[in-house]
Amino acid sequence: MTLGILGGGQLGRMSALAAIRMGIDVRFLTPPASGGGTPGPVAPFANVTLADWTDPAVLKAWASGCDAITVESEWAPAQECADAAPDVPVRPHPKTLRLIRHKGRQNDALRDAGLPLPRYANCATPEAAHEAARAFGLPVVAKKYEGSYDGYGNATCRTPEELEQAWADLASGDGMLVEAFVPFEGEVSALVARREGGETAVYPIIASEHREHQLWAAHVPAGLAPEAEARAREVAGDAIAAVGGVGLLAVEMFWMRDGSVLVNEIAPRPHNTGHLTIEACGGSQFENHVRAALDLPLADPSLRVPAACMVNVVGTREGPLAPDYAAALAVSDAAVHLYGKADSRPRRKLGHVTATGETPEAAREVAERAVAALGL
Amino acid sequence: MTLGILGGGQLGRMSALAAIRMGIDVRFLTPPASGGGTPGPVAPFANVTLADWTDPAVLKAWASGCDAITVESEWAPAQECADAAPDVPVRPHPKTLRLIRHKGRQNDALRDAGLPLPRYANCATPEAAHEAARAFGLPVVAKKYEGSYDGYGNATCRTPEELEQAWADLASGDGMLVEAFVPFEGEVSALVARREGGETAVYPIIASEHREHQLWAAHVPAGLAPEAEARAREVAGDAIAAVGGVGLLAVEMFWMRDGSVLVNEIAPRPHNTGHLTIEACGGSQFENHVRAALDLPLADPSLRVPAACMVNVVGTREGPLAPDYAAALAVSDAAVHLYGKADSRPRRKLGHVTATGETPEAAREVAERAVAALGL
Repeated sequence: MTLGILGGGQLGRMSALAAIRMGIDVRFLTPPASGGGTPGPVAPFANVTLADWTDPAVLKAWASGCDAITVESEWAPAQECADAAPDVPVRPHPKTLRLIRHKGRQNDALRDAGLPLPRYANCATPEAAHEAARAFGLPVVAKKYEGSYDGYGNATCRTPEELEQAWADLASGDGMLVEAFVPFEGEVSALVARREGGETAVYPIIASEHREHQLWAAHVPAGLAPEAEARAREVAGDAIAAVGGVGLLAVEMFWMRDGSVLVNEIAPRPHNTGHLTIEACGGSQFENHVRAALDLPLADPSLRVPAACMVNVVGTREGPLAPDYAAALAVSDAAVHLYGKADSRPRRKLGHVTATGETPEAAREVAERAVAALGL
Repeated sequence: MTLGILGGGQLGRMSALAAIRMGIDVRFLTPPASGGGTPGPVAPFANVTLADWTDPAVLKAWASGCDAITVESEWAPAQECADAAPDVPVRPHPKTLRLIRHKGRQNDALRDAGLPLPRYANCATPEAAHEAARAFGLPVVAKKYEGSYDGYGNATCRTPEELEQAWADLASGDGMLVEAFVPFEGEVSALVARREGGETAVYPIIASEHREHQLWAAHVPAGLAPEAEARAREVAGDAIAAVGGVGLLAVEMFWMRDGSVLVNEIAPRPHNTGHLTIEACGGSQFENHVRAALDLPLADPSLRVPAACMVNVVGTREGPLAPDYAAALAVSDAAVHLYGKADSRPRRKLGHVTATGETPEAAREVAERAVAALGL
């Protein structure tokens, strides 16, 4: 079997490692400019096509012989691929990606399915945004409809003037999203693998910790009470069903003081918080990404260890990468993952370290020690 | 960092998966004929040189830029590589490989280090072989000095006539090895990772089960009493030190009724019984193979699960491979590994399945179900 992956980053790299283990071939299509440096994360693999991935002829030739196609991000040309090679299924479906890509439409689909969300309004005009702010009460969170990540594209507005500025910065032709500010206890995520036909595997809820709007660490168990954990998993599964999600998708949620959750947003791909599933769960998010994309039975997502913590390895300076392997690997019990990026820059995700242990805190201490030892 | 691997089979494939995860580059050199079919196990990787690996110019060019070289088998041209590229360390050292390759010299080295072995004699003539058989008592086991595997090259001799036949079949210029027949309880192995300087990690003892002289299954715990387990690990570590082993090496042992062990032989590479370490141990044999070859600190070899069992996927017929993925992956909890071989033939190792569980028996049941479901 052969899985085609539109993309060439670390998510593709880790998916390929899972696929190859199972004897499944992987091929990549990625535009020459992507990846930011040579060798990129998919450089170790034989079957990488660097070409214009919006060109129907390129897509058709590349997709030929694949059993299915998947994407590394919601921005990959999934629809173009489906149009160019209609016989090869693209999972998640292009229509799911289109829906998720636009935060307003994504929210509408989730609300229509009865899922818990922060209060929000799709605002086509500045007046509508101010009206929403009056209705929800300040502060509110203004969000770009498309293309935001790691905090870019979002703005917390405490005054009407800040909301005015957010409109200038974030609104596109159809406006922007305004959400009520949610006084959450924490942010959590749930990975959901879902097949055509509805077979679903929901992973344990993962707690995430951010630094400067970028994911810094993630751990399991998330610390929710058993009923809250069960309810959060149920919400996540329902959210993915609501957008017709097939493949491995992530649901980011706010965890409220009363134990309830509100859906923040969906990512239609393996998720940074889910990297710890490689060491912590029966089958990793990457294994289930490959299985679900190929419509194969899903691996058991359940936790196999008491606790685990993943800490990102994030660039702090410009320049070539020179990890101190000897120091990092001397941290016993730490699983070091580096993505093969040749160059570092501030905030660039270069790798991650996962540790397992009796508690998330104990695991985190080990993982952080290895991250620091890498000296990046 | 870059690790060069002389070989192109499944051991190299699984080593590459471990290396890439850590951000370590791998390159392969393998003769065009090896691997028996296209695509072979290393086909998914970018950096594969198919060329005459005994040619000094080929070796020199290929080794240039590697931080270290390792081998997939004791038959790889390690000395030739060290001669062609003297600045790049080859681990295990060529002198260790030369010693291990010849069963007579291997036994002598282990005996000289005081390690427990079956009684044996290096027999340069048929008369010497008969003399050994009289001394040990029949039956004896005759062994080819070089090149035996999976039972080929060994003969159990119950009569002088059978010993005569064994001489005709197995003796080379310097004769053959004759060993006392050992009434062992079972066969076990220990994987040993050892660095330059002597840092050593010894894995838990693994029990192996053979069918028609080929490894069929392996499991942990092996079932030895704690003192016997500790003693067996100590013997294994001492055996690798006795041959100057650096890298990841395996010690095959006989387990006797009284709890003692006798060393059968050493394999200077990851071992089929050790595949279960991927799911069962802190760091797998492949991860430690990569680390030790690059002289990096070793990963924790200890068991992370109550029990695990690996069952080989072995070819039963000639022809192209068509695994039933849907059936095999439907066996929850089974980790399916296939090696990317395009063609099957009887006795060919095509993959393996590992399951973890509360007991080796429970794990074995799951693994066997998945192997059967593959339909190979």
